[in-house]
Amino acid sequence: MAVVTLYMSDRDQNKTFTDKKEADNYDKMLELAENVSLWMEKEIPGLNEEQVESIGMLLAENKETLLKALKGKPELLIQSEEDKENVTPISASA
Amino acid sequence: MAVVTLYMSDRDQNKTFTDKKEADNYDKMLELAENVSLWMEKEIPGLNEEQVESIGMLLAENKETLLKALKGKPELLIQSEEDKENVTPISASA
Repeated sequence: MAVVTLYMSDRDQNKTFTDKKEADNYDKMLELAENVSLWMEKEIPGLNEEQVESIGMLLAENKETLLKALKGKPELLIQSEEDKENVTPISASA
Repeated sequence: MAVVTLYMSDRDQNKTFTDKKEADNYDKMLELAENVSLWMEKEIPGLNEEQVESIGMLLAENKETLLKALKGKPELLIQSEEDKENVTPISASA
């Protein structure tokens, strides 16, 4: 038997990590999701609790894609995962 | 009488601009809103059309705040406009 160190975000006590950096990243992701959810709850009338939470998680889990979308590539938001993998630069297709 | 040049985004033919750059910015904002709306429609079940459109416009109209939020300041999303104006840096409060 040996003792190992575990790390956990206090925002989700069901998930533990052996790597502190991973736990930090998870905590930051949940923090972003929570703030997005509060923003939606305040600004968009008639959303139910599940929708509010789902929108928060969707934005937070896709942070990198959303950043690119906001910086001038909005079409990335509606490309499927499959599309993204199959893209071949024009210069490489000859 | 004189003729003036007007600019308009083909995404919203009700709004004209005398400044081309302003029209460009408005068109880009609407493009982002449309893509966010399509993303919401695809990923979040049960949203009505008005909610889908409102979320798209909310994200697009608050692009700069959202960028900052994604880059590590998620609390900006739920600060009221009033809070933002009243913030005094600690270094300036002495």
